[in-house]
Amino acid sequence: MIFQNKPYITGAEFQYIQAAIENRHLSGNGKYTKLCHDFFKDKYGFTKCLLTTSCTDALEMCAILLDVQPGDEVIMPSFTFVSTANAFILRGASIILADSTDGNPNIDADSIASLITPKTKAIVVVHYAGMACDMDAIMKVADEHNVFVVEDAAQAIDSFYTGAGNKQQPLGSIGHLAAFSFHESKNIQCGEGGMLVINDEQFAKRAEIIWEKGTNRAAFFRGEVDKYNWVDMGSSFLPSEITAAFLYAQLQALDAIQNARKEKWRQYFDTLLPLQQQEKLLLPQVPDRATNNAHIFYVVCKSQPERDRLILFLKNNEVQSMFHYPGLHTSPFYTGTHPVTKQLPNAEKFSDSLLRLPLYVELAEEQVGNICRLIAAFHTSE
Amino acid sequence: MIFQNKPYITGAEFQYIQAAIENRHLSGNGKYTKLCHDFFKDKYGFTKCLLTTSCTDALEMCAILLDVQPGDEVIMPSFTFVSTANAFILRGASIILADSTDGNPNIDADSIASLITPKTKAIVVVHYAGMACDMDAIMKVADEHNVFVVEDAAQAIDSFYTGAGNKQQPLGSIGHLAAFSFHESKNIQCGEGGMLVINDEQFAKRAEIIWEKGTNRAAFFRGEVDKYNWVDMGSSFLPSEITAAFLYAQLQALDAIQNARKEKWRQYFDTLLPLQQQEKLLLPQVPDRATNNAHIFYVVCKSQPERDRLILFLKNNEVQSMFHYPGLHTSPFYTGTHPVTKQLPNAEKFSDSLLRLPLYVELAEEQVGNICRLIAAFHTSE
Repeated sequence: MIFQNKPYITGAEFQYIQAAIENRHLSGNGKYTKLCHDFFKDKYGFTKCLLTTSCTDALEMCAILLDVQPGDEVIMPSFTFVSTANAFILRGASIILADSTDGNPNIDADSIASLITPKTKAIVVVHYAGMACDMDAIMKVADEHNVFVVEDAAQAIDSFYTGAGNKQQPLGSIGHLAAFSFHESKNIQCGEGGMLVINDEQFAKRAEIIWEKGTNRAAFFRGEVDKYNWVDMGSSFLPSEITAAFLYAQLQALDAIQNARKEKWRQYFDTLLPLQQQEKLLLPQVPDRATNNAHIFYVVCKSQPERDRLILFLKNNEVQSMFHYPGLHTSPFYTGTHPVTKQLPNAEKFSDSLLRLPLYVELAEEQVGNICRLIAAFHTSE
Repeated sequence: MIFQNKPYITGAEFQYIQAAIENRHLSGNGKYTKLCHDFFKDKYGFTKCLLTTSCTDALEMCAILLDVQPGDEVIMPSFTFVSTANAFILRGASIILADSTDGNPNIDADSIASLITPKTKAIVVVHYAGMACDMDAIMKVADEHNVFVVEDAAQAIDSFYTGAGNKQQPLGSIGHLAAFSFHESKNIQCGEGGMLVINDEQFAKRAEIIWEKGTNRAAFFRGEVDKYNWVDMGSSFLPSEITAAFLYAQLQALDAIQNARKEKWRQYFDTLLPLQQQEKLLLPQVPDRATNNAHIFYVVCKSQPERDRLILFLKNNEVQSMFHYPGLHTSPFYTGTHPVTKQLPNAEKFSDSLLRLPLYVELAEEQVGNICRLIAAFHTSE
């Protein structure tokens, strides 16, 4: 069986975990945590980042930092993982779900203005498959209505957006806050892990406090206060040094990992292009001004039944392929706690018809070729 | 320098992390997570447990499971770590702080009844240094007022309470819910980690859902539902298999670790007993009906200035010793968000005068002897 994902191990993970053990500092915020923070500062220019135990937890830090309260509204796409919403649900917010664009699963920036009310606190955008949302339009509408923007950059490591003035910006550096994932399904992984990025300096000091369980421990260690104490709400958001050491090994191999993934992505795209030309399926469209970080290779089928037949056909040929999110607006929890949302046809299209193909570093060129031949054979037999 | 703590490594951690990597399942809820759960079920009879990324997160799960709402009150000791309170603060609760007993830092069970109001949702008890609170009295007052009991068992692994009818129960198995810590400072550790224990069966199914980000994924994998979906609030509470593999190695060495720690604890107690008899300091009193899990060896000095002089004296002799919590009732966050609490003299006594001495597996008999001699020398010179 060719699985849809196979987490890649660089081989250096052990060496760094061993070193962390020898340091006898295994709880959070030690040497490897700092090395990971520095990596992101150096490579992408993130001014302030904090590793977390998951992207979910980074989003929870965003919700606390934005002081989201019961009654506040937070706008986000329906086509996303439950964590995007849960982080704000936990602070009592109402979630206002937006549709995807027609061309890709990202939030339809043009639909946002009509969803903003005086209660809107934030817009959360999700860069699906690591491809940038229309950030200029989103930052403009947020700015006009004085609301914050959080980038759910779970899938968006090492991807970029070229905005006004042809300035290329790393995803995660554009919104006021951003959250990354290092779950085993991601390009760079440590099993479970995440990171908060703080782009708006007003949140930097409080982020450190919330990260350290609501204490001013960081300021204490910098010698800014005499003793540390309970000064705010917070949680235990920081991952262990075991986790950070593992992650650091992955980060050092980032370029090699990205190159390998992009090669496979390109092979899929080129090999399946004739099927798109024959109108059998749609291939991912990298939006203008976006880059592709080869996080996901997906195809969009013509209908849910056809997509489900293709999943079965591939499975019978020992290839695992996977659909992605059911739109949150159709979920039992959302419909049970929120007013009925109008239909979101693009989100529903991607829920019903999108299919993720195997994509990982160790996937061989021959395997990608075979998977493409299977898909062509399926469409011949349909 | 002899540090107050030095996390112990069994040596098997690597082998299990390596095996987890070979399984290619590094995100949560895999083989090692299940092995850890089974360990606790087999050894302590916990019917349902769920590893978490920290004890803090396990306490947050408790707050969600108990449906704590703004306006609810939660009673807990003032002499505890901020996480005990934060978990309930995040759900909007008011924290009602109780005093410690005179004899040890645990909550004064006799003081609880007077703190209960119609708004009380739960009582959180903390088994300080792994020594049981007066659980019969606490369960009785909770039962009489129909409130829940959460055991903050962060420090309480492998410790027991002998209640009515001479029944010996493991700590963490008595309240409706309990939370353990595997932070590097604990007897059994994985850097950062924790566990929720569900003793009241009514919470078992929902706990699984909240743990899996508010989805019914666990029921899906058991074949109870056709597909999994968003059904409740939740978060990413589960630790990676890297973390669980590390923890499993530690658990397998639990008896050896506990025996080694208890030996050192006993050596401290016996060697320092003459100083207690000379009324120079107080030694830990293991409460009737409790066991000692040798998590902390502490002494109680006569005053804060004397305690602080002893810290300095030991430091000058290359021994690290540490005070513990400032009472939460004196913290900036608590005093800024809650009505003024009456004085809590016992909590203040332990905040001011308690001192933790080095205690870890690799601490040598000779080192314990030297530390005791230093303390005696300090009292001779005072």
